[in-house]
Amino acid sequence: MNLMKMSEFGINSEGGIDRALGSEADYEVREWIKEYWETKLGLEVRTDQIANIWAIRDGNEELLPIVTGSHHDAVPNGGKYDGAMGVAIATEVMQTIIESNIQLRHPLHLISFTGEEPNPFNVSTLGSKVISGRLHKKDLENVCHRGNGQKLSQCIEHLSGNLDDVDGAEIPKGKLAAFLEVHNELGGYLESQGASVSAVKAITGIYREKITAYGEANHAGTTLMNQRKDAFLGMAELATKIDEIAKSFNDPNVVETMGYIKISPNEANVIPYKSESLVDIRTFDNDKKNQLLASIDEAVIEIEASRGVVFKREVILDQPPRELDKEIEEIVMDEIEKTGEKKLSIVSMAGHDAANMQLVTKSGMIFVRSIGGKGHCKEEYSKKEDICKAAQLALEVILKLDGELAV
Amino acid sequence: MNLMKMSEFGINSEGGIDRALGSEADYEVREWIKEYWETKLGLEVRTDQIANIWAIRDGNEELLPIVTGSHHDAVPNGGKYDGAMGVAIATEVMQTIIESNIQLRHPLHLISFTGEEPNPFNVSTLGSKVISGRLHKKDLENVCHRGNGQKLSQCIEHLSGNLDDVDGAEIPKGKLAAFLEVHNELGGYLESQGASVSAVKAITGIYREKITAYGEANHAGTTLMNQRKDAFLGMAELATKIDEIAKSFNDPNVVETMGYIKISPNEANVIPYKSESLVDIRTFDNDKKNQLLASIDEAVIEIEASRGVVFKREVILDQPPRELDKEIEEIVMDEIEKTGEKKLSIVSMAGHDAANMQLVTKSGMIFVRSIGGKGHCKEEYSKKEDICKAAQLALEVILKLDGELAV
Repeated sequence: MNLMKMSEFGINSEGGIDRALGSEADYEVREWIKEYWETKLGLEVRTDQIANIWAIRDGNEELLPIVTGSHHDAVPNGGKYDGAMGVAIATEVMQTIIESNIQLRHPLHLISFTGEEPNPFNVSTLGSKVISGRLHKKDLENVCHRGNGQKLSQCIEHLSGNLDDVDGAEIPKGKLAAFLEVHNELGGYLESQGASVSAVKAITGIYREKITAYGEANHAGTTLMNQRKDAFLGMAELATKIDEIAKSFNDPNVVETMGYIKISPNEANVIPYKSESLVDIRTFDNDKKNQLLASIDEAVIEIEASRGVVFKREVILDQPPRELDKEIEEIVMDEIEKTGEKKLSIVSMAGHDAANMQLVTKSGMIFVRSIGGKGHCKEEYSKKEDICKAAQLALEVILKLDGELAV
Repeated sequence: MNLMKMSEFGINSEGGIDRALGSEADYEVREWIKEYWETKLGLEVRTDQIANIWAIRDGNEELLPIVTGSHHDAVPNGGKYDGAMGVAIATEVMQTIIESNIQLRHPLHLISFTGEEPNPFNVSTLGSKVISGRLHKKDLENVCHRGNGQKLSQCIEHLSGNLDDVDGAEIPKGKLAAFLEVHNELGGYLESQGASVSAVKAITGIYREKITAYGEANHAGTTLMNQRKDAFLGMAELATKIDEIAKSFNDPNVVETMGYIKISPNEANVIPYKSESLVDIRTFDNDKKNQLLASIDEAVIEIEASRGVVFKREVILDQPPRELDKEIEEIVMDEIEKTGEKKLSIVSMAGHDAANMQLVTKSGMIFVRSIGGKGHCKEEYSKKEDICKAAQLALEVILKLDGELAV
């Protein structure tokens, strides 16, 4: 199975995958993908200016291309399924079509996107952002690797792209017929519903705030408990309050995480005078986002009064939710129903290349159940039977799109 | 005033004092102290094997020495008063005795201790621990600076000590008549009582635990709120619970601080799988310490159950409280009463060299009010009139000890 072959690139001693944008494993898996598409599928392979990898099969009519694929990079110590599974399934679909000599009206293109995951260049869904015109040369030419200082342009050149000419990779609206991506859910909703696959109706909005609590440094022994202005305790109480607020929505499409904290001076015997955190809030529902933020406002005022600390807040990301294409969603659900499973379409709580592709074409996704709801970790797993079901589903959806789409 | 002169050594651009053990400022302030004691006071100055600085004035009878002094080092970005004030007051007392040609029965020795504060060699009250036999050559010969790797032996040699021969600095019990240290309180109790000075009846016990919470890394978007095992939230809730427990004693002699935290992976978009903290508990009352620890045990069990995290706990310090000398305490209180202020004797919630000196002689302390209760920070401040009062008090106490002590 191609997925298991791909997971050999970047596997570490713990069994996790290290295959960040620009890493040696990124380079090597790309070479493998290109060779497979060229030699096993016999397709014309090209790498665009941002180093997305494409394979091209012509159609029988003068129509726009249908594109399918996902990404081949991974988060640090990530799983085997995130991204790579979508590339493997797209490859499988293409191989089936070729081997079965299925005639399509539309050209069918495979894609494996560059740098979808958060990476040391601090830009995620890089390949699809460039294609969809969300990022241009001017945004990227000074970007450097936060670890070793390497310029993004060098990295992209090594991967056979060309940042100088990157604006040429943009695909104007109206030049593609459709985009379809298969991806593991990375969460536990499908499993909780007993579903092996689902359609995706939208990609969540992501809102991120930097919150800093200011207190007063003082001696851990001599400062009376009621005279303290402890910046860590202020943040700790806020963290538990926001958690409580987010849980009170009791909605799988409202989640909140405080995954980062830095306190100062961070010494056992000094009361912290400063505590910085990042709060990540995701929901498809703007009203709920606003309700949640209003509740955080109240909690902040309460804690400032009771603990003598002061909070400073700064919005650092406010990415709106994005609906995917209704027609593809319906086709996916109809095809799921034909297999005897219930029609299910969910909101993705993670970002995906498909969200960017929706800016330039009809874009849809198929989700595959993640066992134990695990994502972005080495324990990530999807059952072989679910993966096969998703591959069959992707084939049916592409055949249906090929038959129905007039452009 | 000598205190203001001393604060020129190591003062930084924020007005804080950087004068850690082994720093250039440590070296320079020592040179200044030695020169002052030698030339201004005309005393014989010596540096012992651990680099404590001594000045010696003989007495009129064949009696044991009374010793007085404090330390000259400082915490990073610390205040002008902590330690240096005690050295300056001891110097002042000696100068008054010399200039007034007061005849003492006992020899009177000044001391400025080496490395009292937490420092990059990870050993505090170093000078008094060596004198009192709590640390020996075998404990110190392999100690290195955690930043630059310098050996402690090199540092001590540069300060005119000699670690090879450090066991020679130990002073057996029965070789000193008494020890007196003046120090700022570093806390807010004296201020809350409207007192400018007090006696010190004991030094708090310090108990420190490393607590680690283990949860599960997962995707910040796709993981449902009720499926999370968030190690940071577990620790945050524990921090607020322990704070609540410590406050419930409503006792100035029971304090608790969580001043250190490190979470992993510490990324905005990943649920933390690990959170490490240090909990510092200080009290003079062992029953209360045990009650507090029992309440923490309960909180830990509760949080493990509700959040699906697991705590691992490890005691890394369990220093018992130490009573200071009753006779000196009484003399200090009597002398305070003579000035018209109320008799007050308190528990020190910070560690001091006087606690170690109690192991080898009668040891006592005088505390000076800290304005705003501030300690271990650049805002540390004591009023000039309180300092003068403490200096006068120290002189009276030493004269009284000289008159009363038979050894």
